[in-house]
Amino acid sequence: MMKEIVVKNISIGDELLIGQVINTNAAWLGEQLSSAGFRLDSTLTIGDSEKAILDAFNACMDADLVLVTGGLGPTADDITKPTVCKFFDTELEFCQEAYDNVVSLFKRRGFQMSERNRGQAMLPKACQYVPNTYGTAPCMWLEKQGVVFVFMPGVPFEMKGIFNDELLPRIKERFHSVPYEKRVIMTTGIGESFLADKIKDWEDALPDFLSLAYLPQYGMVRLRLSGRHEDAELLHQTLDAEVEKLTRLISEYIFSMQDQPIERTVFDLLINKGMTFASAESCTGGNIAHVFTLIPGSSEVFKGTAVTYATPMKTKVLGVPAEDIEKYGVVSQQVVEGMAKGVRDLMESDFGVATTGVAGPSGGTEENPVGTVWIGVASPHGVVSQRFNFGKDRENVINRATIAAYEMLRQQIIINQAP
Amino acid sequence: MMKEIVVKNISIGDELLIGQVINTNAAWLGEQLSSAGFRLDSTLTIGDSEKAILDAFNACMDADLVLVTGGLGPTADDITKPTVCKFFDTELEFCQEAYDNVVSLFKRRGFQMSERNRGQAMLPKACQYVPNTYGTAPCMWLEKQGVVFVFMPGVPFEMKGIFNDELLPRIKERFHSVPYEKRVIMTTGIGESFLADKIKDWEDALPDFLSLAYLPQYGMVRLRLSGRHEDAELLHQTLDAEVEKLTRLISEYIFSMQDQPIERTVFDLLINKGMTFASAESCTGGNIAHVFTLIPGSSEVFKGTAVTYATPMKTKVLGVPAEDIEKYGVVSQQVVEGMAKGVRDLMESDFGVATTGVAGPSGGTEENPVGTVWIGVASPHGVVSQRFNFGKDRENVINRATIAAYEMLRQQIIINQAP
Repeated sequence: MMKEIVVKNISIGDELLIGQVINTNAAWLGEQLSSAGFRLDSTLTIGDSEKAILDAFNACMDADLVLVTGGLGPTADDITKPTVCKFFDTELEFCQEAYDNVVSLFKRRGFQMSERNRGQAMLPKACQYVPNTYGTAPCMWLEKQGVVFVFMPGVPFEMKGIFNDELLPRIKERFHSVPYEKRVIMTTGIGESFLADKIKDWEDALPDFLSLAYLPQYGMVRLRLSGRHEDAELLHQTLDAEVEKLTRLISEYIFSMQDQPIERTVFDLLINKGMTFASAESCTGGNIAHVFTLIPGSSEVFKGTAVTYATPMKTKVLGVPAEDIEKYGVVSQQVVEGMAKGVRDLMESDFGVATTGVAGPSGGTEENPVGTVWIGVASPHGVVSQRFNFGKDRENVINRATIAAYEMLRQQIIINQAP
Repeated sequence: MMKEIVVKNISIGDELLIGQVINTNAAWLGEQLSSAGFRLDSTLTIGDSEKAILDAFNACMDADLVLVTGGLGPTADDITKPTVCKFFDTELEFCQEAYDNVVSLFKRRGFQMSERNRGQAMLPKACQYVPNTYGTAPCMWLEKQGVVFVFMPGVPFEMKGIFNDELLPRIKERFHSVPYEKRVIMTTGIGESFLADKIKDWEDALPDFLSLAYLPQYGMVRLRLSGRHEDAELLHQTLDAEVEKLTRLISEYIFSMQDQPIERTVFDLLINKGMTFASAESCTGGNIAHVFTLIPGSSEVFKGTAVTYATPMKTKVLGVPAEDIEKYGVVSQQVVEGMAKGVRDLMESDFGVATTGVAGPSGGTEENPVGTVWIGVASPHGVVSQRFNFGKDRENVINRATIAAYEMLRQQIIINQAP
């Protein structure tokens, strides 16, 4: 068996150190490398200074592959490229291919080129030029004493494009990788620790080469089962078998075996059934509509929303009886069911989803403390509703109520047939 | 003048290297340190392995202060704390203060303690215990050959709390800092490069100790002017003077001198004037309502929203004449103005904001390509509207249209007096 290689990442940029920009490149590279069968050993972030860059390069001479991001823009250029030349004992020279790329990019965008941009085609003599069709910064591949250094631009969109298109194929050809595979199981309606208790025996018995990660987020838990093994077929079959055992243990909490948000699962279900929905939102303030309308094509199944933040609008727009609001209060089963039925009628949809609650930080009462949310779903066969408490933080209450609303809607879609 | 200290950050955690979690702690620490007059030199992310941790510690012996985050949870504990003991040549011992903290936390939350949690009170003998009132993981302060190492939990919420409450005061007492001050100027309605051209002469003439950062985001540009100087009074006066010069150059594009989103500026204006608004959203799909209702107390000035995704709902809910839709199309000035007036009447608000457009990726026509958005604002004195193109990416179109809608609303609030 060949040895695993050591991969390190260096991110260059003052803006990362003063907190102006969060380094998302490192996490993205880590995930891509994992999926491709490599393991990221460390990531180091440093500023735009020659000393810091040289120290960092020297500290990576025990690695096999060093992925460097940032420091190659038309302004930052001045430091990184000369430092690269110093480290690799080479000098800058004009690269026609890089120049042609810059020219064609400017032409495509209809902009004028400046002298600064011409400078972007000056590359270290010793480097292999890697095409960047996403921007003007060059991508470079250099070696020193058997260690491969790859230089990529720091703009995430450019870096990702070059890495996938050009670099990963070259890295795979050059280095030995260990086959990797993962499965994602999306659950809702059960907390992380209860879930862990329920599947403890199964988890403890997992073979060494598989590992399970709990990724909780706003009322749902993504389970990721992943592994690396030289025998890709064995890995695949073992994952199949273990996922089957797992789904038997927690079937009632699983809403998808695909790594996607719950509103996407609802979208797929509605498209398949040719049915539609609409929402009436009070405490979620339009978030149910917002997350759904981020999905391209959502207009096929989504009719609309009434955000009735002001109480009288619940009566005027949705037809909730004023007596119900008076008698039971705005945060009540009667009102949420009236809103769900009202918006279903108003928007002429198959399903109506409604929320009313106290998102906080103020507005809580003894009966309905901050975090209390009623959610209702009206369907062709009637209306269901449930009371929740989602805790204290306003944004958290809104997000968790949105996910719970989609989970209730999902259940009603599954139960109901088209009328 | 005392020398500036060298500060390094080490983040420990396998989850950071496989891309499961993005390291936001490092950027946050960088920002806090800047504001407090220190400069972060580098951040290094490594996995939960003894060798990696020891190598990282040794590589930091040229620093004055090393901030370590992560690796201290009840499970990850097993590696970090023994490694710390090895490096500092000490051993674990029971710390009553840490134990009392864990006990009181569990009591407050009403949970049972496990043996694992008791282990969290075992700390390196040589360390100074720093109270963590946010969680069960300990915070520790150790020194080796004049280098201060501080260990904090990796959970962002805990780390931030401890850093602000306990650590920053100790760090300020121990080390020399250079006074820092910043100003933020929020602009909209002008692109980054045009803005840069407009203020080039001013920017070039800035004193050495001030620096300007352009932070563009969805149709607005935040300008941050910041500086460090031993003479805090001089720094303050220079910033005052430079900001005054800058505002004279670009006054028409500035919407706030506070670092806050535009909907927050609109909220403040409406509260001050005692006026209200409502939105009618097609292509923004409820996002105008969503971002506003994240603001605590928004119900004071926000009446509600009609998301009329399905075309007939524009007539049924908002009263837009069907002939207008037929004649001019859904994405038109007539329809957006009808929607704005319609929702103002329906929700009985002072202002009505409306959007209709093509968010994409499909649905574009030659006349109205993807990215086309009409925005309208109805006020007590009439209705105004404008046509935009916000590019191709769906999420980008939605976000930019939302910001533009708030900018148009802001202008109308300023122009209009209460009726």
